[in-house]
Amino acid sequence: MIEEINTVFEKLSFFFETRKFADLRILTLDLEPADIANFMENNLDEKEQLKFFRLLPKELASDVFVETDTDTQERLIKAFTDRELKEVIDDMFLDDAVDLIEEMPANVVKRILKNADPENRKQINALLEYPDDTAGSIMTPEYVSLSASMTVEEAFDKIRRTGLNKETIYTCYVTDRKKKLTGVVTVRDMLLADKQELIAHIMDSTVITAFTLDDKEQVALKFSKYAFLALPVVDKEGCLVGIVTVDDAVDVIQEEATEDIQKMAAVLPNEKPYLKQSIWSIWKARVPWLLLLMISATFTSMILSHYEASLAAVGGGLLYMFVPMLMGTAGNAGNQTSVTVIRAIALGEVEFKNVFRVILKEMLAAFVLGLTVAVACFLKLMFIDNLYYEISVTVALIVSAVLLLTIVMAKLVGCILPLIAKKCRLDPAVVASPFMTTIVDVLSLIIYCSIAIAVLG
Amino acid sequence: MIEEINTVFEKLSFFFETRKFADLRILTLDLEPADIANFMENNLDEKEQLKFFRLLPKELASDVFVETDTDTQERLIKAFTDRELKEVIDDMFLDDAVDLIEEMPANVVKRILKNADPENRKQINALLEYPDDTAGSIMTPEYVSLSASMTVEEAFDKIRRTGLNKETIYTCYVTDRKKKLTGVVTVRDMLLADKQELIAHIMDSTVITAFTLDDKEQVALKFSKYAFLALPVVDKEGCLVGIVTVDDAVDVIQEEATEDIQKMAAVLPNEKPYLKQSIWSIWKARVPWLLLLMISATFTSMILSHYEASLAAVGGGLLYMFVPMLMGTAGNAGNQTSVTVIRAIALGEVEFKNVFRVILKEMLAAFVLGLTVAVACFLKLMFIDNLYYEISVTVALIVSAVLLLTIVMAKLVGCILPLIAKKCRLDPAVVASPFMTTIVDVLSLIIYCSIAIAVLG
Repeated sequence: MIEEINTVFEKLSFFFETRKFADLRILTLDLEPADIANFMENNLDEKEQLKFFRLLPKELASDVFVETDTDTQERLIKAFTDRELKEVIDDMFLDDAVDLIEEMPANVVKRILKNADPENRKQINALLEYPDDTAGSIMTPEYVSLSASMTVEEAFDKIRRTGLNKETIYTCYVTDRKKKLTGVVTVRDMLLADKQELIAHIMDSTVITAFTLDDKEQVALKFSKYAFLALPVVDKEGCLVGIVTVDDAVDVIQEEATEDIQKMAAVLPNEKPYLKQSIWSIWKARVPWLLLLMISATFTSMILSHYEASLAAVGGGLLYMFVPMLMGTAGNAGNQTSVTVIRAIALGEVEFKNVFRVILKEMLAAFVLGLTVAVACFLKLMFIDNLYYEISVTVALIVSAVLLLTIVMAKLVGCILPLIAKKCRLDPAVVASPFMTTIVDVLSLIIYCSIAIAVLG
Repeated sequence: MIEEINTVFEKLSFFFETRKFADLRILTLDLEPADIANFMENNLDEKEQLKFFRLLPKELASDVFVETDTDTQERLIKAFTDRELKEVIDDMFLDDAVDLIEEMPANVVKRILKNADPENRKQINALLEYPDDTAGSIMTPEYVSLSASMTVEEAFDKIRRTGLNKETIYTCYVTDRKKKLTGVVTVRDMLLADKQELIAHIMDSTVITAFTLDDKEQVALKFSKYAFLALPVVDKEGCLVGIVTVDDAVDVIQEEATEDIQKMAAVLPNEKPYLKQSIWSIWKARVPWLLLLMISATFTSMILSHYEASLAAVGGGLLYMFVPMLMGTAGNAGNQTSVTVIRAIALGEVEFKNVFRVILKEMLAAFVLGLTVAVACFLKLMFIDNLYYEISVTVALIVSAVLLLTIVMAKLVGCILPLIAKKCRLDPAVVASPFMTTIVDVLSLIIYCSIAIAVLG
């Protein structure tokens, strides 16, 4: 019964090529829409994709469409008749329709909206109003609403009547006449209760909600905290306007982690899968930071040139040797801290109010870490490097002491920058990592040069 | 109805302090276990925590216990009577019990197992056998199993009888007499079907499964791909041994992203929330890479000292000035690529078989990026830096050309290292980022020094 996906794909190809369309249709009914979309994209050319899509059973078509990538979606829509387009759009969950519209060029959007059912169009337009990154932008109004005076049996009847078009039926929302959210009840509660029990008696009336304008990342964190399958979204008056389902929360969690990782690595966020990114979009995402960081490295050049003569006077070429090691270690130490703090902020573990606790913790850690690394460096300089170069105890002491200082300095910068960014409502991931390296580079160079010249001069 | 969590916490404190325990109990019934655990940890001292925990309604106690942090759990268990411990453990889902046991010291584990129900103990021991990071280690055997010959009504009866103790009832698994998985059916399908319909007719017999030893990260990716609420886990014979639920998949996704971010920043993975990490555990997580990277920077010192005399002979102190900029840009360029590729591997977008496509893409991008940055650098050297230092066209050309070369080199290293690591079943996140910086530093120095000396010498 359980077949490898490749075997299934071979069968699909075979049925398609030999025009056994009835078999093809039966086979697709048993497959996941994501796999069918995958098959279309990787095994068929553009013409075949359209032909294949038209062969899909009606109830599957829009689910498969949603799973294809943006380019395929655009191509398919352009090839669709108005009627086909209308069917696909009307069958889609509204949040998926909104996602689609946000990715399509203006003329395609126009055609989509023109062909959508008037009621759907109204709701889609309302959803499009919510800013990106808010709960409103990822919610769907397709939830099951019950009233507190229903019996469990009546509630099940309503679910049976309307459930087919709801994104989830397992969590149902109880609202009053003004659409105010008054409680939540799960199908599990209902199945385990008596049929004649009133919803009012089994519903949970303390409901965790999100507001329409809440950050979608915060919404996703609620899913990981509470293990919900769905979360109701209310407006300022407490009226239920939509729900976010766990599958969308999973997408948000993945996307936000990817974005943060990209930002930490000095890449502008790019949502497309790597292999589908064009060279041009890669260039656009990477060149700003690469240029900015190249130009800001001017500061390190200025410092080196400023101290150059004095450094050579007191230590000859020897002192230059340690510059990359000192700058590198400072960068690594700072990065360890900033990345840790950025992630803790993203997971909601650390807020700006914790700033002093974080600084205290980091300074203690920095001191112990710095001491360990400085002692190791001193021993290495005295017993290993000394075999090749003549390193005096004074120089070894200077280098080790500077190492300790720069580690403490780097970790201080590394924990303060993301917290300040957060406080100023900037993105900690962007301000911190690449900026930080430059600041830490400059500071560590100044510390090294000034101490070396002061002691040896 | 919808109250701010802080108001609720104040009420809890008030009821607890004024000994209004009946009110307290009623209030907790309406709260989420995660919030109650949060309240206990942040508002009560150790003695109060135990007292508060004992006041909780029975049906909530073990849910709250599961949500408290490891230290609190250990303290509570040590204070529990054997009977209390037994109640908490027997009420827990088995996967949660396994997670607990994996975190507790040996003597506590012994007591937990001694007090568990014999049937549960057997299953817990079986689950403990699965290696960390596998599907087996995050699954639970508490699923609803149905047989294909049941009617929908009979299936609902079984869910009502046994559902209370199952981690999810919404996805039910159809097995034959030998426990072989033959299909999957959701409560939604059942609610929308006729009561007399056979499960065999409405079940989906092409089931996406995981094997017990599959990587749990791969399992989590299936959730984001297919939007499942649960995924069945089968052994080699195709027998159903457990299920993974979406809440556990969400946890895995969060943890794996955090781990990858930590590894990329040269920190050993640490599962505890940041504010709960001790200085000692921070030290342990950060010192290995910091030491290793400090020591490996010896190579850059060796190269600098090797070329020192020649570099000074051909260019005076001037050529040193550009070393930090060149090394920094190479590091940034390499990081952009390695981090992008590592994330793409983690998301399953890129595999080793794509190695040539990735290299081609990166080399093209590197050339365009390198050219942009090199031209910008040349203009900056000629028209800005030249105001302060005397930079000849030859030197500016050398620096810019080296910049282009190092960017291409860094991006080549940055895309090949993670893919090789993946191929060798090493962790791309570890091998790539910190190692990469050192390799790229060394190579960029060699390129710079040798070209400068060759051209100017």
